[in-house]
Amino acid sequence: MTLEELTDSLDALFYPRNVAIFEASEKLWYFMMGFTQQSFDQNKLYLISQSKDELFGLKCYKSLEDVPEDTIDLLILSVGRHRIVDSLKQLLYQKVIKTIHIFTAGMGESDKDGVEIEKEVFKILNENNTRAIGPNCMGIYSPKGHLAYEPLFPVKPGNISLVFQSGDLHSQTIRLGSLRHDLRFSKGVSVGNCVDLQISDFLEYYNQDDDTDLVLVYFEGINALHPNEGKKLLNTLRGMKKPVLFMNGGKTQRAQTAVKTHTGSISTNQKIWKAIYEQTPIVEVPTSFDDMLDYTYLFYNFINRNKSIKKEIMYPEGKNVLVILWSGGFGIAATNTLTELGLNVPYFEGERLEKLRKIYPVKIGSLSNPLDLPWISSSETYFEIAKAAIEENTIEGKIDLVLLLTDAWEDVEEEGFFKSYYNNLLKIKELTESLNKVFILILPEYPAVRRKKYYKKLIKDGFIVYPNFRRAAKSFRALYEYGRKTQNKI
Amino acid sequence: MTLEELTDSLDALFYPRNVAIFEASEKLWYFMMGFTQQSFDQNKLYLISQSKDELFGLKCYKSLEDVPEDTIDLLILSVGRHRIVDSLKQLLYQKVIKTIHIFTAGMGESDKDGVEIEKEVFKILNENNTRAIGPNCMGIYSPKGHLAYEPLFPVKPGNISLVFQSGDLHSQTIRLGSLRHDLRFSKGVSVGNCVDLQISDFLEYYNQDDDTDLVLVYFEGINALHPNEGKKLLNTLRGMKKPVLFMNGGKTQRAQTAVKTHTGSISTNQKIWKAIYEQTPIVEVPTSFDDMLDYTYLFYNFINRNKSIKKEIMYPEGKNVLVILWSGGFGIAATNTLTELGLNVPYFEGERLEKLRKIYPVKIGSLSNPLDLPWISSSETYFEIAKAAIEENTIEGKIDLVLLLTDAWEDVEEEGFFKSYYNNLLKIKELTESLNKVFILILPEYPAVRRKKYYKKLIKDGFIVYPNFRRAAKSFRALYEYGRKTQNKI
Repeated sequence: MTLEELTDSLDALFYPRNVAIFEASEKLWYFMMGFTQQSFDQNKLYLISQSKDELFGLKCYKSLEDVPEDTIDLLILSVGRHRIVDSLKQLLYQKVIKTIHIFTAGMGESDKDGVEIEKEVFKILNENNTRAIGPNCMGIYSPKGHLAYEPLFPVKPGNISLVFQSGDLHSQTIRLGSLRHDLRFSKGVSVGNCVDLQISDFLEYYNQDDDTDLVLVYFEGINALHPNEGKKLLNTLRGMKKPVLFMNGGKTQRAQTAVKTHTGSISTNQKIWKAIYEQTPIVEVPTSFDDMLDYTYLFYNFINRNKSIKKEIMYPEGKNVLVILWSGGFGIAATNTLTELGLNVPYFEGERLEKLRKIYPVKIGSLSNPLDLPWISSSETYFEIAKAAIEENTIEGKIDLVLLLTDAWEDVEEEGFFKSYYNNLLKIKELTESLNKVFILILPEYPAVRRKKYYKKLIKDGFIVYPNFRRAAKSFRALYEYGRKTQNKI
Repeated sequence: MTLEELTDSLDALFYPRNVAIFEASEKLWYFMMGFTQQSFDQNKLYLISQSKDELFGLKCYKSLEDVPEDTIDLLILSVGRHRIVDSLKQLLYQKVIKTIHIFTAGMGESDKDGVEIEKEVFKILNENNTRAIGPNCMGIYSPKGHLAYEPLFPVKPGNISLVFQSGDLHSQTIRLGSLRHDLRFSKGVSVGNCVDLQISDFLEYYNQDDDTDLVLVYFEGINALHPNEGKKLLNTLRGMKKPVLFMNGGKTQRAQTAVKTHTGSISTNQKIWKAIYEQTPIVEVPTSFDDMLDYTYLFYNFINRNKSIKKEIMYPEGKNVLVILWSGGFGIAATNTLTELGLNVPYFEGERLEKLRKIYPVKIGSLSNPLDLPWISSSETYFEIAKAAIEENTIEGKIDLVLLLTDAWEDVEEEGFFKSYYNNLLKIKELTESLNKVFILILPEYPAVRRKKYYKKLIKDGFIVYPNFRRAAKSFRALYEYGRKTQNKI
């Protein structure tokens, strides 16, 4: 299959002119709410049901044959596994079907019978030149294509695209990513057991998709029907021209046994993966959902800020961190955390320290980085000392990342101390970003207790905010790693 | 100094019959609010000020001499460093003072002059047989002694005691710990530069204090005036009969340079610390504030639940984890996370799997651990299958920890699906805890967005809730480590 043919199929999958559901039933209400939420044209949504005349206020067709279209762009196939082979044969006989989302679970991941059914399905699809995702998957999210399989996915499109071998992780990434960090997506696909379309197919497609600037992958393993996918995936990853955040579910040996019962895939051993991470520009995400969201949050903001000022994206070239706070203890804890994660916290001494002391000649706190600055956070001096430190050329080179622990105790006030403090934050942000460095605020979490207004204000004003130093530092390290891998080649 | 003398001094520090503040000024308002909040007897609070007749509605004395008491239990000394030596001499000449909180910063941590002042202070204290904390510290929190240095510390006492070389980390642990996890404390002390009283002194005191069941330490290093403290600390830690959660600020070499500017202490190298962790029953807390709170949260609940049922506390003997959820992807991610942290996720196969299949004969999801249980979480079967798995004797031994990802999508409803689901959670909790295993719920965070009611309900009903698998698993591992170190000796 050529790239053109693949593109044609995946265009039909992500931007279908019509969708048929076989068999429609009440239990698919969340799909229906997704379609409604995304304003999919109801005249182009065909429900097939032998037992119902109407469902969700829409007419039901007794058979796909009755549908007034020659070609179906996307068919959602939802039948029990024992009926899947016969249904497919019949449906493909009745209409030309470009793509199919096979929803049915309990296939290759369950037992040997399931594996046999998958083989048969693959054969039928091939004979009919029809492409499919699944089985055992949730399907497609494509705001521009007016598709979603549940109501909580945002309608406004963005530039992140996903290909996930877990429907739940796929859903949660979109749902929580939009709620927590205001992330917006171009396309998402939960691919399940990958009987036909492979992860590499979606990566190829995303790589040349103008609406995609960042790709997220959750990988578990390879379907035994596609022994060449490993090699193909490696080649595709090598050629990716945009950041790919890659989470490998089958990472530990113990998890590999769990993968078998989830998508029935064969996962690859850790050594091979280490080599893959070294040979390709992809960024490894630890198998933690929070890490996936954290990394995505920083890449997304970094890419979009750069795009908005029409700069060529330059990833951080170093990993020197300046820490600004009002707390000796937190400063030391942060220094440990950052150092243990492999970042540098350049120590200001000698001339460099004297330069800062001239701006702020004080005996309490510290100017050695971390800058521990008691009492002055709402003064002019605060900005001046921060500016001097940010622009410093340290022994280890320039500063690449500024982490500021924001300790505004009260919620948003419009006047006085808070206002001057907040202005300082805005000025430090502007300065740092104008120098193409990364600026992150640390706001210790008060889950459901305090600081909600303050957090919202920060987000509205474009600050990047993390709940602790470790999470911010890990995400930055991923950004740096991507730059190191891709920019060194030049 | 004998243990009896030490106890006498520290009793005066934590339960003072009177307190004098020299010199009182408006800027100490947060101290005053702390006293008020904790209902300290205002007739026993003596403010000394030469310039004011009244402050905070209290009479000011011109001199300590005028105070109608022979002995002062606790003096809070707040003067600039250049006045500290003369003030001390004068005050100690005027009255018998049992303990002093030296608030003044800019001492040994700042420069050589500060170090000289500290030497002089130490000498004067010794000559007068007076014990002191500080300089460069926030002081005492003791709800039973009606003492706090800020208004947000809880009034209700508990059984956690702290000794911290950072005032801010000390304050945040108490403030956030009570807000986030409803933690309650017996005693807390921010000790600063440790010119007189040492961390080991407080550990000795806490070790024999009936109100203390759990000790938290934030350590940075040793004051050069006390070269024997290292050895003494090691001995004290060896003899601790209660869990000590120990965070070492001077962990990495880079942080050691930062420690110098914070408390002026000499920190110890990593190898020595590794040996200390091996030779003593203390639990190492990574230098992250979230870890400190997370570990404390689990130890606190574990200890108090055991105390409430008057059982001898038995810490987990193994690290076998059962994971229950409704998500293949999260299950695999959790398996990786747990395995990488050194816990076991016993795999159910063969006879064990068949036993579970008899209860719940289904092809979708998985019963191999993680238990991936789609659709049934509000049914009787859900509890039955959980029960069978929890009671299973796996190849690796019995289950020690049950982690359940709670995916109740909507906020609290009183009827229907949610009620049955919630009843299942309560029953699983009761069962797990009756078997002396640890039960933890994972509720992915929706900061300031969703699920606040649900979270509150869970906490009210005594569930232990973590935002993700990693944080829960790390805390459990600490609990296990403590058991391994202390119970193996028997």
